Amino acid sequence: MKTLKIPEATIIRLSVYSRYLSQVDQKGVVTISSGEIAEGVGVSPAQVRKDLAYFGEFGTRGVGYNVKDLHRHIMKILGLNSEWPTIVVGAGNLGTALCMYRGFRERGFQIVAVFDNDPAKIGENINEVTVYGLDKLAEIVEKEDVKIGIIAVPADYAQEVANQLVDAGVNAILNFAPKVINVPDGVELRNVDLTVNLEILTFNLGTQKRNSQP
Amino acid sequence: MKTLKIPEATIIRLSVYSRYLSQVDQKGVVTISSGEIAEGVGVSPAQVRKDLAYFGEFGTRGVGYNVKDLHRHIMKILGLNSEWPTIVVGAGNLGTALCMYRGFRERGFQIVAVFDNDPAKIGENINEVTVYGLDKLAEIVEKEDVKIGIIAVPADYAQEVANQLVDAGVNAILNFAPKVINVPDGVELRNVDLTVNLEILTFNLGTQKRNSQP
Repeated sequence: MKTLKIPEATIIRLSVYSRYLSQVDQKGVVTISSGEIAEGVGVSPAQVRKDLAYFGEFGTRGVGYNVKDLHRHIMKILGLNSEWPTIVVGAGNLGTALCMYRGFRERGFQIVAVFDNDPAKIGENINEVTVYGLDKLAEIVEKEDVKIGIIAVPADYAQEVANQLVDAGVNAILNFAPKVINVPDGVELRNVDLTVNLEILTFNLGTQKRNSQP
Repeated sequence: MKTLKIPEATIIRLSVYSRYLSQVDQKGVVTISSGEIAEGVGVSPAQVRKDLAYFGEFGTRGVGYNVKDLHRHIMKILGLNSEWPTIVVGAGNLGTALCMYRGFRERGFQIVAVFDNDPAKIGENINEVTVYGLDKLAEIVEKEDVKIGIIAVPADYAQEVANQLVDAGVNAILNFAPKVINVPDGVELRNVDLTVNLEILTFNLGTQKRNSQP
C-alpha cells in the first residue's frame, strides 16, 4: 500500500474539524460546505479541502459534505472509531490531573489504571481509577488490552518507565516528562513539551511589538 | 516593517534547535553545521536552513554556525532573552503540577503567583509559590509586571478567568481548560489540548497497521 506522509498539522486540524462537526451535528445540521467548516474553526476553505483530500473524496460538488458521514470518516482516520484503554504511570499531581481530565474520555481514551511506586498511593482511587504498583504493569496491560501509556513521572525515571511500558506490550507512549527518551522501532512516541507553548506565546508577543513599531 | 508569517511548526523547531544548541554548547563545541543540527534533532538539513533563513543569515558557508551566537539569536527570536514572570490560575492538580514543572523555569518562565477561589488554599505555598485569592489578581499582575497567565481551572470557569486576566493587564494566555475561550484582539491566546496528542498517536498506530498490510 502506498505510504503517504501526512503532515502532523493536518492531523491536528482533522481533530479540530471532528470536534466542530460533532457540535454542528448535535445542532441537527445535515450538510456543510468546506467554507462553513473553515469559518467555524478559523482556517481557510482551501486548507480544509486540502486536508480532506489526503484521504480521498468526501463531498459532493455544490452540495458539500454530509455532516455525519464526514465526522465518522474523520474519526475513523484518527483511529477514534473504537475505545482505547489507556494507562498513566505516575500518580503525582500531573498524573492525577490527567486522570481527572474530562477531554480524554470524551474522545474514547479511557484511563483504566494508574501506576506508582509509592506504597502510600497503591490501592487508592483517583477519579474511580485504581493506583497499582509497577509490578502489576504487564498483567494489567495484557488483561485490559492496553496500547497507550502516558508517562507522568519525574524526568529521571522517564526512560526506565518507557522501557517497562514497552516490555509490557504498550506500543504508543505519550511522554510528559521533560526528558528525551528512546523507544524501539515500531513503538510510537510523542513528547508533550508544556514549555514550547509558552515560547510560541512569547514569540508572538515579540512579533506584535515588532509590527507595531514604525 | 514587513510582516512575515512564520509557520508555527518553525517556531516549535526553533525551540528544539535552541535546546540542542544549549546542550552542544555545554559540551564545548564552538561551530556546528546545519547537517549536524539536523542529525541531532531528527529533521532534514534543508529544513534547518529553511527555518533559520526566515530570520536572516546566521552561518558562514563552509564553516557553519557559531554555536553560542546561533543559540543567542534563536533565544532572542523566541523572546527568551529576558525573564517572563508568569501566573497560574487554578491551584488544583493541574495548576499544582504546572507550578512544580521544572521545564518552565529553565526557559525563563518564572511562576510568581498562583490564584484560586478556594479559601482553604489561599495562603498556602506550592513549590515556594504563594496561592492568592482572585481579588489580588490585578494588584499582583501590576506589581510583578506579569504578561503571561496560565488557565488551569475547570472548563466552566475558563472564560470568566480569561476575562479577569485580560482586565488585569495580562496579554498572553495559555489555556489548559478543554473549552473554547475568546479574548480581545491584541491578546495572544494558545489552547493546550492534551487529547490531540493522543489522537496523533492513534493516527500513527493506524498508519503502521495499514502499511504493514500486504
